Amino acid sequence: MYLLRPAAYNVRRIVPNGLRTMAGQADPLTDLKVDNDGVAILTMQRMPVNSLNLDLLQDLSNSFDEVAKNKTRAMILTSASPTVFSAGLDIMEMYKPDLKRAEAFWSTLQEVWLKLFGANFITAAAINGHSPAGGCLLSMSCEYRAMVAGKYSIGLNETALGIIAPPWFMDTMCHTIPMRQAELALTTGKLFPVDEALKVGLIDEIATDKDDAIAKCKAFIKKFDRIPPLARSITKLSIREGPLKRLQATRKEDVAEFIKYVGNPKIQQGLEMYIQAMKQKAKK
Amino acid sequence: MYLLRPAAYNVRRIVPNGLRTMAGQADPLTDLKVDNDGVAILTMQRMPVNSLNLDLLQDLSNSFDEVAKNKTRAMILTSASPTVFSAGLDIMEMYKPDLKRAEAFWSTLQEVWLKLFGANFITAAAINGHSPAGGCLLSMSCEYRAMVAGKYSIGLNETALGIIAPPWFMDTMCHTIPMRQAELALTTGKLFPVDEALKVGLIDEIATDKDDAIAKCKAFIKKFDRIPPLARSITKLSIREGPLKRLQATRKEDVAEFIKYVGNPKIQQGLEMYIQAMKQKAKK
Amino acid sequence: MYLLRPAAYNVRRIVPNGLRTMAGQADPLTDLKVDNDGVAILTMQRMPVNSLNLDLLQDLSNSFDEVAKNKTRAMILTSASPTVFSAGLDIMEMYKPDLKRAEAFWSTLQEVWLKLFGANFITAAAINGHSPAGGCLLSMSCEYRAMVAGKYSIGLNETALGIIAPPWFMDTMCHTIPMRQAELALTTGKLFPVDEALKVGLIDEIATDKDDAIAKCKAFIKKFDRIPPLARSITKLSIREGPLKRLQATRKEDVAEFIKYVGNPKIQQGLEMYIQAMKQKAKK
Repeated sequence: MYLLRPAAYNVRRIVPNGLRTMAGQADPLTDLKVDNDGVAILTMQRMPVNSLNLDLLQDLSNSFDEVAKNKTRAMILTSASPTVFSAGLDIMEMYKPDLKRAEAFWSTLQEVWLKLFGANFITAAAINGHSPAGGCLLSMSCEYRAMVAGKYSIGLNETALGIIAPPWFMDTMCHTIPMRQAELALTTGKLFPVDEALKVGLIDEIATDKDDAIAKCKAFIKKFDRIPPLARSITKLSIREGPLKRLQATRKEDVAEFIKYVGNPKIQQGLEMYIQAMKQKAKK
Repeated sequence: MYLLRPAAYNVRRIVPNGLRTMAGQADPLTDLKVDNDGVAILTMQRMPVNSLNLDLLQDLSNSFDEVAKNKTRAMILTSASPTVFSAGLDIMEMYKPDLKRAEAFWSTLQEVWLKLFGANFITAAAINGHSPAGGCLLSMSCEYRAMVAGKYSIGLNETALGIIAPPWFMDTMCHTIPMRQAELALTTGKLFPVDEALKVGLIDEIATDKDDAIAKCKAFIKKFDRIPPLARSITKLSIREGPLKRLQATRKEDVAEFIKYVGNPKIQQGLEMYIQAMKQKAKK
Repeated sequence: MYLLRPAAYNVRRIVPNGLRTMAGQADPLTDLKVDNDGVAILTMQRMPVNSLNLDLLQDLSNSFDEVAKNKTRAMILTSASPTVFSAGLDIMEMYKPDLKRAEAFWSTLQEVWLKLFGANFITAAAINGHSPAGGCLLSMSCEYRAMVAGKYSIGLNETALGIIAPPWFMDTMCHTIPMRQAELALTTGKLFPVDEALKVGLIDEIATDKDDAIAKCKAFIKKFDRIPPLARSITKLSIREGPLKRLQATRKEDVAEFIKYVGNPKIQQGLEMYIQAMKQKAKK
């Protein structure tokens, strides 16, 4: 991968704000490079499973801004983990949260989605491993998805965890696969094996490995070589206008809904049980 | 089928209101049992073809309430007829109707749909025979459809009878099959043979007989064994919110539209011709 | 083709207004005949490629009115060109346009779409050649599409020309093919070869030649032989209500958007380059 852009762009960005420090995070949570095709490769590297906590979400939000600011034509989102694209929202952000942080967490998740689903630049996901819940949301928000073959799965499985995917998660899925399939998948919390994901249209192509997934994303991006970028991006945002406007108009209510949700003792009880089970599993 | 619930629930309910008596109906119009899986089986038995008159609609509306009140996790809708799931709306409710009754008829049909399409519990249809018009609406309002193989058909064939399916019938179809297919089906009044219904997505599975259809519905219901019911139902209602809100906001206008329709002399003339033709056919 | 209707209908209509004269157009831009099935065949014949300029659009708008006024049950739209259905909007209407004419041009395009997408009569397109951009819009606005096999293509390729398809173009495509496919097609400006167009659902059938395409359209129209026309048309308009209302509510803003667009020096520069390139190509 050849570094085309000036150093200030290609090297890791400075820590964007105090929150990363606050969380005591030292290593960069993502890696952002621009290769010789002018395509930005944004790699999530919050090990082990790219759980989307506030810090990773803020890093993603800032990274999208950088890609936009540098007028990079396209961005491929992928993971540094060999088996997980992203495990979705970090459950620890929901377990007995500080109110301010919980608000920032959800609001930043909204921002990440608004910036990614509504990106002016071309977006594609090289899904090199499991992609449940929030991981699926990120990949569905891109314009193209190549997923590595293997025993991985992808889907909005929120209901299986007793959680409810907010309307904009649903909108994003209905933008990708038929309504009927979306209802079935959302209510059953279905995680699609790779071949089923292709069949239903949740992904566009199956890749042999991560490099192949990135190559397939680049082949998609290449389709726009002769398409004037402004016409392309206005057209994209026009067809995505409905879901974007819907969240923009209800951001506050959507945060309030999340705060109400995490404040529910039953939900906290469920999360505690889940965390205990995870800890038991980890001990073995 | 083992009766799990207390007698007050499993035996036939008392006649819910005066209207059933008014119509001179003695036999119960539906049978409602809960089996040992905790699944309610609601069998329409207004012979010979489960025409949806006011009485059957009120029975269905009450039955849905009972299923909800008893917190039964799931309901399978089927028919006692060997060849007909439901023939749809009873044309006699539209032919020279009493105004009050016509209003009650349409309003109850709205209620039946709002309760079934918007049910908190899991819903599935074991379609053991013909399922035109209102019969198709009932089955599409469920979350899953298994249809018995045979020379049966299913579809919203209203236009073929010179009738117009109201917007919420259309919404229900567009929630089930792609818009393009819905437009073709609705304008041509298409009744899909079983195999075509499967292909277009109007049904989910083909069953060998009624028992198999019920078994297939139960296999669908089993998918929710580990899904927290509240997360499931909120998710379902969220994705069905659009059509539900649309009718809720226009119930009065929708009843007025029906009253205007049945008050149209041309429509009455058409119905009279249709009824005469049926009578002639019956004589042969 | 047998002329069933009175001469006043079957002969070419008088020039509908001053604008045709203004444009110095002498030959009729369309041919409208009603055959012995009561089906109107409307043939675009603005040679060589049926570019949709103001005159052809006004002719189409008037022709739709005539079909409606004469209560012809169905209309098939086709082209007199052996290789092009319609090349889409005439770029000369956008290049350094007179403001008044540009407003009339866009407003008439809106009218053509509102009348065709919202036609009471049955509509089908016999697509006998290339059908890009506006040509694709016209055919998608019909209820059925049979396309002649060959090296032709169809699609909304606006982005490829640096142009943005307005929301109602997009609505029309989303009414025809799945959202996911529409987004891919619209952003990449994809022109579908005939077989791919069939696969994605952009056309309904492949025909061997123009006569076969018309025959296939007639077979579609025949499906409505026993469907009461009023029920059919109300049902059609009901399912098409969303896109129709959306444009009706925003016609002025939509014209203003077009005027702003053609007033943009960059767009004019792009058009000039395109026109020069076409001229160079024509010289060779």
